[in-house]
Amino acid sequence: MNIFIVHAHPEPQSFTTSMMKTAVEEFTRAGHSVEVSDLYAMNWNPVASAADFGSRKKEDYLVYALEQRYSNEAGTIAPDIAAEIEKIKKSDLIILNFPLYWFSVPAILKGWIDRVFVSGFCYGGLRFYDNGGLKGKKAMLSFTLGGREHMFGPDAIHGELEVMLRPLLRGTLAYVGLEVLPFFAGYHIPYLKPEAREQIMQDYKTHLAGIASLAPLSFPKMSDFDEKLYPLK
Amino acid sequence: MNIFIVHAHPEPQSFTTSMMKTAVEEFTRAGHSVEVSDLYAMNWNPVASAADFGSRKKEDYLVYALEQRYSNEAGTIAPDIAAEIEKIKKSDLIILNFPLYWFSVPAILKGWIDRVFVSGFCYGGLRFYDNGGLKGKKAMLSFTLGGREHMFGPDAIHGELEVMLRPLLRGTLAYVGLEVLPFFAGYHIPYLKPEAREQIMQDYKTHLAGIASLAPLSFPKMSDFDEKLYPLK
Repeated sequence: MNIFIVHAHPEPQSFTTSMMKTAVEEFTRAGHSVEVSDLYAMNWNPVASAADFGSRKKEDYLVYALEQRYSNEAGTIAPDIAAEIEKIKKSDLIILNFPLYWFSVPAILKGWIDRVFVSGFCYGGLRFYDNGGLKGKKAMLSFTLGGREHMFGPDAIHGELEVMLRPLLRGTLAYVGLEVLPFFAGYHIPYLKPEAREQIMQDYKTHLAGIASLAPLSFPKMSDFDEKLYPLK
Repeated sequence: MNIFIVHAHPEPQSFTTSMMKTAVEEFTRAGHSVEVSDLYAMNWNPVASAADFGSRKKEDYLVYALEQRYSNEAGTIAPDIAAEIEKIKKSDLIILNFPLYWFSVPAILKGWIDRVFVSGFCYGGLRFYDNGGLKGKKAMLSFTLGGREHMFGPDAIHGELEVMLRPLLRGTLAYVGLEVLPFFAGYHIPYLKPEAREQIMQDYKTHLAGIASLAPLSFPKMSDFDEKLYPLK
């Protein structure tokens, strides 16, 4: 399998960074091929702007998604974006590895999504969810957070973690056609002693080792909606 | 009232930018004081990093939230962040105005949240939700999106919009103690004719004119949880 890890953490010694390194080691040992985009190390630019397009469909008024589609097809999209698109094309599994900031990805990773998941290639028209452009590939979130596991659940203070993650799991990964595997969450990381952290790293290795047998999450099916996206029943 | 609008759109001629300008006009006419941070115009840096701190609690290992707390209290946090914190302090109502990218804010605005909602001042310990650091102030999302209104709802293809927005409404704005007003969504904007857009702008003016009487959304109350954040009942 070709695995593409998109990693975002400002501290190279962090537990989150160790999770990325562990994933590279474990997957490589298992015979997979692994590519990493370490966004902080790459000094990745997260800001979607007109500068992303070497040629323009509409010079005087920027509609970002329209120019993504045009510029990607014309081969004039910014080289940093084009390079990431090539990594996606080669991959069978994409892992986003990050510390949870405000129940979402850090801005540098949000901007990787904003700029790299281009209209046309990843989605467009009725090509989304199970008909999305990245259909046939898988994706997974692996992240750390300060909160404890009991702070999430139907009656817990933050509600269900999977609901907090909906814009990522459903609105982003599933939306572009990726089969979304269950996420791995490393809870309470900044406050744990080394032994407790080591246990979480072992749990992560177990999660990774069993990745081929993880049942994907369920999302909407385009066949349940008409061509204007009204539900059929 | 002191109103602080944080605006993020890469096209100055966009409808979203016009919404920001309309809000400034309408609020000014009504006698309010308005401040705007136009993140694209400011060339705002959205990337949380060690460079945000002029002095460090822990020089050799970056825990971002810990350094936020330390550096903000020491008065050594980066000047661009300090300036935004001052604007928040002066404000009674904060409006985030943006185009919805991947059912969330564009990266440049995510990075405003990541860097400006600093630990210590905005939250920390048991100071969150109705006990959050920005208690007493209000907040509102105003945004545009490509999708149509019928694509959101319990049985709709994207589910409920308010659930997609949960990390922003609950996990960010409510989390720091802000009273969250109902959002304004401008649906299907890139595909609308001028007359239809004008109707939406009128609807936005009506929303703004009635802002003082909008009932805030409901979120968890700290008094329903114990000191370890287990639910009391």
